Amino acid sequence: MQTILIQLDTDNQASIFDRVVAIDSGVAQIFSCAAVTPETVTSLVHGAIFTRGPADLKHTAIFIGGSSAAAGEALQKKVLKAFFGPLRVSVMMDSNGCNTTAAAAIATARKHMPLTSVPATVLGATGPVGLRAAELLAAEGAHVTLVSRTQERAKAAAETIRERVPQAIVVAGAAADAQENEALCQGAEVVVAAGAAGACLLSQGALQRLSGLKLAIDLNAVPPLGLADVSANDKGVTHHGVLCYGALGVGGLKMKVHRQCVASLFEASDRVLDTQAIYEVARRTAGITT
Amino acid sequence: MQTILIQLDTDNQASIFDRVVAIDSGVAQIFSCAAVTPETVTSLVHGAIFTRGPADLKHTAIFIGGSSAAAGEALQKKVLKAFFGPLRVSVMMDSNGCNTTAAAAIATARKHMPLTSVPATVLGATGPVGLRAAELLAAEGAHVTLVSRTQERAKAAAETIRERVPQAIVVAGAAADAQENEALCQGAEVVVAAGAAGACLLSQGALQRLSGLKLAIDLNAVPPLGLADVSANDKGVTHHGVLCYGALGVGGLKMKVHRQCVASLFEASDRVLDTQAIYEVARRTAGITT
Amino acid sequence: MQTILIQLDTDNQASIFDRVVAIDSGVAQIFSCAAVTPETVTSLVHGAIFTRGPADLKHTAIFIGGSSAAAGEALQKKVLKAFFGPLRVSVMMDSNGCNTTAAAAIATARKHMPLTSVPATVLGATGPVGLRAAELLAAEGAHVTLVSRTQERAKAAAETIRERVPQAIVVAGAAADAQENEALCQGAEVVVAAGAAGACLLSQGALQRLSGLKLAIDLNAVPPLGLADVSANDKGVTHHGVLCYGALGVGGLKMKVHRQCVASLFEASDRVLDTQAIYEVARRTAGITT
Repeated sequence: MQTILIQLDTDNQASIFDRVVAIDSGVAQIFSCAAVTPETVTSLVHGAIFTRGPADLKHTAIFIGGSSAAAGEALQKKVLKAFFGPLRVSVMMDSNGCNTTAAAAIATARKHMPLTSVPATVLGATGPVGLRAAELLAAEGAHVTLVSRTQERAKAAAETIRERVPQAIVVAGAAADAQENEALCQGAEVVVAAGAAGACLLSQGALQRLSGLKLAIDLNAVPPLGLADVSANDKGVTHHGVLCYGALGVGGLKMKVHRQCVASLFEASDRVLDTQAIYEVARRTAGITT
Repeated sequence: MQTILIQLDTDNQASIFDRVVAIDSGVAQIFSCAAVTPETVTSLVHGAIFTRGPADLKHTAIFIGGSSAAAGEALQKKVLKAFFGPLRVSVMMDSNGCNTTAAAAIATARKHMPLTSVPATVLGATGPVGLRAAELLAAEGAHVTLVSRTQERAKAAAETIRERVPQAIVVAGAAADAQENEALCQGAEVVVAAGAAGACLLSQGALQRLSGLKLAIDLNAVPPLGLADVSANDKGVTHHGVLCYGALGVGGLKMKVHRQCVASLFEASDRVLDTQAIYEVARRTAGITT
Repeated sequence: MQTILIQLDTDNQASIFDRVVAIDSGVAQIFSCAAVTPETVTSLVHGAIFTRGPADLKHTAIFIGGSSAAAGEALQKKVLKAFFGPLRVSVMMDSNGCNTTAAAAIATARKHMPLTSVPATVLGATGPVGLRAAELLAAEGAHVTLVSRTQERAKAAAETIRERVPQAIVVAGAAADAQENEALCQGAEVVVAAGAAGACLLSQGALQRLSGLKLAIDLNAVPPLGLADVSANDKGVTHHGVLCYGALGVGGLKMKVHRQCVASLFEASDRVLDTQAIYEVARRTAGITT
């Protein structure tokens, strides 16, 4: 029986990126659906679960994607609601690569150092990737400072993380420019930049000025970069005593995690690959055993 | 040369159900087209018939689906018109599963008993499945009472059947509620319920009250069921001396018929799998040889 | 690693013709995108180039199609702009079959005779196929008379050809009817008709009246034909001393060229199969070695 991945994409064109990765993960058939909405998704899910028998449903799975993580989460809720008892298939949500990117970034950090009680700052933390990076850092026990342009959005994001990770230690901070961002990175051992493309979050020389900083990860691949001191290709390079990773430096692990996750959907019919589950795959893929 | 099934779906999202079944029928490639209209279908059909040579056209076929049987029939007409002599491919129409479901239901009945001159009542007979179930019963020689909520719609459906099956013996009846439905089932040896989801057509105890009834089939899988005495999972179970089938009890044969039909499209380039042809497949699949 | 062809189609339904040919060219996976616009194409291209590594990008390619050659050319420009250095994939443009049809027609002519300095007239030369046929004749060194219904459009087309083929010898002519077309064919050794479906460009007996004419190709397959003396099935048949090809007579080579071109996309990651490159494939496919 052939493996079938049903791509439910919230954009008007189903992501080519996700389709190529699906094929490279060994999926035999990819069924792409574009412009999927919570209103239209239920009959698509029923089509997936009412054809093959329960014992064969592990050969069918659902991938939720698109450029909006919020739209993807809304879709995921409806997908999970459409299942009936054993009539269910595994589901992965990775709109805009938010989960695989955040998971690869934090697994990269975790590979270099334990994160328990480590002070860590996430810049651009209210976007889809930043929010998930902060969540994963908090779940690893880091003491997270979550920075956004407004205190209101930062607080809301911190609250979301506390709901998902009850033991989370998170404080919210607002920063209007690179200087204010830098102030909120003082004392951090880990800094992750996940701002919008083209937003410079820490200016040149910041790595030197931030004493105590051990690891800096910039997830922005489009110049101007998020951390002026880190280049997109940096992959464990040391600048001024700080281990640096750029977006492309994290990208190899991200791609592996994405492929591993898709492949693992077909091991059972009840996998739900959300942020935490994808992070578990990233940890294994990165060779983290502790 | 690979087999290609071209799915022409009248809905905004091409049915996942039909795509999965196509793959499980052994089709190598499925090309899905959504929101297909009679206005746009001709160039799609030309794309199918003008590529491979006439001798190879049996490796390409068309499946017409979607939630509306009327839209599917309109599409089928245009598809057949778009062919030129030997430049044609096989076609199957099964919008909303109307043909495979009706064919599986009546083949299930036929397997248990000859239907010639047998009094049979179809409830909810003006919907896509009910109309086709009544047509197939009439074609088997049953004396069909076709029941709808209004006499007008019932008469129109009976007329449609007489056009398709000239020798049909069909009478139209109107029933406003379960009690009136039950009155129209008096004397029937076979009752098929094909009403809308959630409409109770015969109330509890009806099977006991209907003397002479031998076989009852309820095609509604969503509670409340169409026949209160029959459960969705019933598969040849006897209740009060009546052999009973629920929607899931018929479902296994329906799925087999669907797959067999898709596979048979590729045996020649001129198959047209409509109600009667799909019923022939259902008879063979059910092992009916007489 | 599987070959993936990404079909970017400018119509609301992605061409079935192009999808079938892709499969018959040996492509493992075809990803079809409909209603693609220059505004939405960049992220689709990024999805294609940011997944597989540069060394593997030759296993992915892009096919641009749809019913409008102008829309296809606009898309091609944006596709080529979206590449970054080695992050690119091979691209073929064949909206409405314009390039493969024109290439097959002129390769057919070239197979029979050298074209250098040969007087040649293209009728209906401002349509997508006619313009490209005229361009390819000019590139072969023929002295081309390019005919349209208005002098203005004919001149613009001649100018376009001079931009693409600097050494081109092209004159523009206007003809309102078959008689005026015939006057512009006087002295031509080659006539190619590429008018709109149903437009008769040369009336019955023209082949006899045109002294010096050696080869006539009519690319219109829908009656009434473009050249009344040539039938759609003619394939190197001689009428009144003139070698004749109809649309179906050229069609076999066109299909082979289309399949060869698609297959050749996967030989490298930097092929751009436009009019001239597709003609090179047509020459090789037709066995022209000089």
